[in-house]
Amino acid sequence: MATMTAAVLHGIGDLRIEQRPVPELGAPDHVLARIRAVGVCGSDVHFFTEGKIGPYVVERPLVLGHESCGEVVAVGSAVSIHRVGDRVALEPGVPCRACRYCKEGRYNLCAAVGFMATPPYDGAYCEYVSWPADFAHLLPPGVDFEQGAMVEPLAVAVQAAKRAGVRLGQSAAVLGAGPIGLLTMQVVRAAGCYPVVVTDVVESRLALAAKLGATATVNAGQGDAVAAIREAAGGDGPDHCFETAGSVGTVRQAMQAVRLGGVVTLVGMIAQDEFPVAVMDVICREYDLRGVFRYCNAYPPALALLASRAVQVTPLITHRFPLERAREALELARDRKDVAVKVMVQVAGP
Amino acid sequence: MATMTAAVLHGIGDLRIEQRPVPELGAPDHVLARIRAVGVCGSDVHFFTEGKIGPYVVERPLVLGHESCGEVVAVGSAVSIHRVGDRVALEPGVPCRACRYCKEGRYNLCAAVGFMATPPYDGAYCEYVSWPADFAHLLPPGVDFEQGAMVEPLAVAVQAAKRAGVRLGQSAAVLGAGPIGLLTMQVVRAAGCYPVVVTDVVESRLALAAKLGATATVNAGQGDAVAAIREAAGGDGPDHCFETAGSVGTVRQAMQAVRLGGVVTLVGMIAQDEFPVAVMDVICREYDLRGVFRYCNAYPPALALLASRAVQVTPLITHRFPLERAREALELARDRKDVAVKVMVQVAGP
Amino acid sequence: MATMTAAVLHGIGDLRIEQRPVPELGAPDHVLARIRAVGVCGSDVHFFTEGKIGPYVVERPLVLGHESCGEVVAVGSAVSIHRVGDRVALEPGVPCRACRYCKEGRYNLCAAVGFMATPPYDGAYCEYVSWPADFAHLLPPGVDFEQGAMVEPLAVAVQAAKRAGVRLGQSAAVLGAGPIGLLTMQVVRAAGCYPVVVTDVVESRLALAAKLGATATVNAGQGDAVAAIREAAGGDGPDHCFETAGSVGTVRQAMQAVRLGGVVTLVGMIAQDEFPVAVMDVICREYDLRGVFRYCNAYPPALALLASRAVQVTPLITHRFPLERAREALELARDRKDVAVKVMVQVAGP
Amino acid sequence: MATMTAAVLHGIGDLRIEQRPVPELGAPDHVLARIRAVGVCGSDVHFFTEGKIGPYVVERPLVLGHESCGEVVAVGSAVSIHRVGDRVALEPGVPCRACRYCKEGRYNLCAAVGFMATPPYDGAYCEYVSWPADFAHLLPPGVDFEQGAMVEPLAVAVQAAKRAGVRLGQSAAVLGAGPIGLLTMQVVRAAGCYPVVVTDVVESRLALAAKLGATATVNAGQGDAVAAIREAAGGDGPDHCFETAGSVGTVRQAMQAVRLGGVVTLVGMIAQDEFPVAVMDVICREYDLRGVFRYCNAYPPALALLASRAVQVTPLITHRFPLERAREALELARDRKDVAVKVMVQVAGP
Repeated sequence: MATMTAAVLHGIGDLRIEQRPVPELGAPDHVLARIRAVGVCGSDVHFFTEGKIGPYVVERPLVLGHESCGEVVAVGSAVSIHRVGDRVALEPGVPCRACRYCKEGRYNLCAAVGFMATPPYDGAYCEYVSWPADFAHLLPPGVDFEQGAMVEPLAVAVQAAKRAGVRLGQSAAVLGAGPIGLLTMQVVRAAGCYPVVVTDVVESRLALAAKLGATATVNAGQGDAVAAIREAAGGDGPDHCFETAGSVGTVRQAMQAVRLGGVVTLVGMIAQDEFPVAVMDVICREYDLRGVFRYCNAYPPALALLASRAVQVTPLITHRFPLERAREALELARDRKDVAVKVMVQVAGP
Repeated sequence: MATMTAAVLHGIGDLRIEQRPVPELGAPDHVLARIRAVGVCGSDVHFFTEGKIGPYVVERPLVLGHESCGEVVAVGSAVSIHRVGDRVALEPGVPCRACRYCKEGRYNLCAAVGFMATPPYDGAYCEYVSWPADFAHLLPPGVDFEQGAMVEPLAVAVQAAKRAGVRLGQSAAVLGAGPIGLLTMQVVRAAGCYPVVVTDVVESRLALAAKLGATATVNAGQGDAVAAIREAAGGDGPDHCFETAGSVGTVRQAMQAVRLGGVVTLVGMIAQDEFPVAVMDVICREYDLRGVFRYCNAYPPALALLASRAVQVTPLITHRFPLERAREALELARDRKDVAVKVMVQVAGP
Repeated sequence: MATMTAAVLHGIGDLRIEQRPVPELGAPDHVLARIRAVGVCGSDVHFFTEGKIGPYVVERPLVLGHESCGEVVAVGSAVSIHRVGDRVALEPGVPCRACRYCKEGRYNLCAAVGFMATPPYDGAYCEYVSWPADFAHLLPPGVDFEQGAMVEPLAVAVQAAKRAGVRLGQSAAVLGAGPIGLLTMQVVRAAGCYPVVVTDVVESRLALAAKLGATATVNAGQGDAVAAIREAAGGDGPDHCFETAGSVGTVRQAMQAVRLGGVVTLVGMIAQDEFPVAVMDVICREYDLRGVFRYCNAYPPALALLASRAVQVTPLITHRFPLERAREALELARDRKDVAVKVMVQVAGP
Repeated sequence: MATMTAAVLHGIGDLRIEQRPVPELGAPDHVLARIRAVGVCGSDVHFFTEGKIGPYVVERPLVLGHESCGEVVAVGSAVSIHRVGDRVALEPGVPCRACRYCKEGRYNLCAAVGFMATPPYDGAYCEYVSWPADFAHLLPPGVDFEQGAMVEPLAVAVQAAKRAGVRLGQSAAVLGAGPIGLLTMQVVRAAGCYPVVVTDVVESRLALAAKLGATATVNAGQGDAVAAIREAAGGDGPDHCFETAGSVGTVRQAMQAVRLGGVVTLVGMIAQDEFPVAVMDVICREYDLRGVFRYCNAYPPALALLASRAVQVTPLITHRFPLERAREALELARDRKDVAVKVMVQVAGP
């Protein structure tokens, strides 16, 4: 039986490079993909360092990685569109297709979704994955494997924009200039928002934000961040605030900055489950708080944004490692937030 | 100069029945209304007992009352629809008509709105008010003065339903069975929600809720309110939770009870500006929190609901006082929440 | 092998009562339903009299009937909710679950949908059907088999209301008082529309409309129907016009009657593919024309409307026939539009 | 009394350059603007050549021009934001501010709107106009007078995008590459649509479309335009078709090309009031037809698009004339559609 290399988490900090059997096509509607690029996500780092995320505990060896892209090497008998050699971005969560959420177009809320690299489902730090063809999205011409792997975090940004309901000419603030913040900024710019302010406490990230199209940047560690956001967005405050930094302080800033009747969209995962917020302000200023959980129907628009060159993802990739050095990739993402934006794991071609 | 009776607040607890000049038509697009019924709102009670609400401080004598209805006794030269004798419900907030909020259809957010019985604007515990004709809504046949006065709280319930975006066949929970809760329950029922659960800690209010159409009631003082709401609404929890009780506990229950991807609509004024809430839950279960501040474009649908008999407001009126006894009306509303639902101030006809 | 009775169309006018094998469970996620009631739809009559509808041609024997309801007699191994004995309304169109329309929540547009009684898929004028459990909707307590069969046309009305985007307090006109018109009227009433006008040329149908809750009726064969609709709906014309009669004249009336910025929703199938309409009027009065094709996610709200008693369907059932007399049912529906509203085919219990 | 130059239409083809009194500030909430640039619109040409548009007949001398921009030379006493010297784009339609349409945010549908250069309201082919300050929109830095005059047609394109409800990643076709088509293409690109196809029969306009960002162009005079649109937009047809050419043929193409469940937005004025369209196709493919009439709340987003450089308007300006030669401007716009895209009337500074 043919084997492949995989990076498998056995416990906290215990990532091993192992040989596993190459999977067969899992079903007639599957394709078999040779993985070529996989991003390191904060959740991968979290499993690596903590062994769990909330209720998801690594109890058996788990292949990490869910921001993946590759090429089709085999096609199931019921697959009509894909051909061997097609390049595909794998959407990592596959829902039940039968519950109300699936039928109503919000399949990210399906209770039975199987999501890569979330126990008990293996991820894509490996050479081959069998995956439902309709969750293996064809890359447009000119989009490379690394960009294809970036579709996953880009889909989160697209979901944030969809949930927020951004419209042409609205103003926005994006709090946090990590990967999700930088992508969200670009997505809302691509949706016609203007001006779009970005905040962070790391100057290099703000510089990258400005380079990628932010119309203003605010160093939230200096002075009154809320006042600076409001001034940069126009007097009333931004129509939209996107919280991507995942801190209590930025949630509070987002709520204070947003204009009357605006929308605060919560994207970043926050360490504290509960903390004090100004609920009365939500009422008296009649605004919305909206959560974002993963994404649905977001890969196709994300791919259109890449095809149209409306969004740049390659400048976010600061470091690259081969699959065999996946541990180093995780460690760097964990330890060097000062310099690492997105770390990419590369898998050699077949 | 003709005079009229008015109930004027001079300071905390100091409500005086006085004679004031009958107002003249304030502008060519005004009507002069003879007031006939005015409800006692929680905000009237608040000004009476505290002398202020947030930034609004009673610094000069203030006529209270903003849930008013009357009949037209004079018509401005630029008014085309109204006739002397028409019965009208006065929408108490008049906006600037020129700012972005006014132009975009959310005039309740206009910073320049003048609102009855909110300093420095006098209210309607008096005999005559001059008011812009387009904010003096004609009552449909069969709707009486008291029902017309109830259009104001009914408009809050309509605004809550609009902000929530309720749709046919969705389930809902209404937390709190005071006037706003009972009206919200009826409005969402009238919008096709089913089932609709109501919670409170006062059994008599729950009994009234059941009589008015709630499909289930939950005594939140007994057992696990969240579990009871979820069971009554169906397994996943309600599509919508409406918080109308204005307590920290009910906000938390609403957030815990709502289904994945649902909407929690915040209507009730809460004494604490800030308190801990489960922000991470908003993200992980991708739901919305939406504030409701007064209303806009809500009087016409509220009047349609009355005309169609889809909503009953008269059963909410538990006590009635003539204008001259307005102080007693306020005291009863303040002191007897166990028995008073809506207290009505009546003004004798011309 | 056990056999069952089925009503099979062999060609134009050639409906035969035959014995067919009882189907087995078609898949682990199926239930086997014993059919108990099936409505006669216009499309059944059309296949019976013409042998085709547009591109759908009866080339092989076809079991007609798609408005069906029954009880579960066997449950597949992967089915979790259903139990033997449950009463279920079968949603007749099952989509591919993988295309963009399925994923985006508009599965009625799926190109691969298999729809009962539309070639080559057999329908439900028979005793047993194996069907995916998630398209076999549980009836609420108190809803009988005939009402369950009526959920199918009720779902069309729900879809019309959804596509129109009806809101509380909006006015509506429903053109045509056949089954779909009578159900649409009730659904938009249940969604809070008021007033709701119904037009038809048959007085008995208008009388039924009035009995079921129409706030006004207009005999479109007498006088100026558009003027009468506008007067009944209020001066500007209705916010919504629903065309359910399927005639060129009623489409034109709907477009003329609707208010500025309103919505004309097209539900009824029209014999002419093309005909002249006032396209410039759509522009100058900035309104919408919206098509309705079957339904998606409409069975659950339709069942909620039945459970809540907001809609009455039984008064629409004017005639009943046992399965063995299905031909008479079709002939009566075809020939006696003056008296037949909904004709029901009944199947005896197991 | 000071006088100013104005271009006044006295009858068909009879445009005279006259001296008129400089207007005074019309109200305390007005500004007095010195006009600097005014575009020639198709409606100006229509009044010039026909003396009327539909019900609007030139019965008294009429100053033409409504796409205007200038600088503030005087400010009313109630105006708070504007200062002398501010550059402003004048939104030409001022509504009543009191009817339901005004209150609901669709003031373009106000029956009492006064619109520049539409009888009996004078337009802006003149030196000075007094105008409500809230309809005199401040130009952002870097936007010049001609670009300011282009905000009016740009607002039509913004309204089209709003009415269509375009979303990130949707595909679109714009039929017609005149000024409105070229602006609509850019606006929907700026809103994240991709791909965006443009059709026309004039190659030079298609070349301009490509230069301004169209991802594909189709010469509708050659071969099967519908097939070409579908191929360029992707297999199912575009999510959105925008008809801006104002011809029967392009309306039909738009309806044929749009995908299942898509939206056809009708922007172009069509000479025929009525013509045959495939109404059954609207139903069977469940799409929408939506009209666009002028615009509301569209100047602010249009100005944001200019400020952000997301839209280019200057390349559309092919010809320029001083006010004194306004007749030539109209004649050229009328006679040379082969070369003229947008003709601009320039007014010298004070």
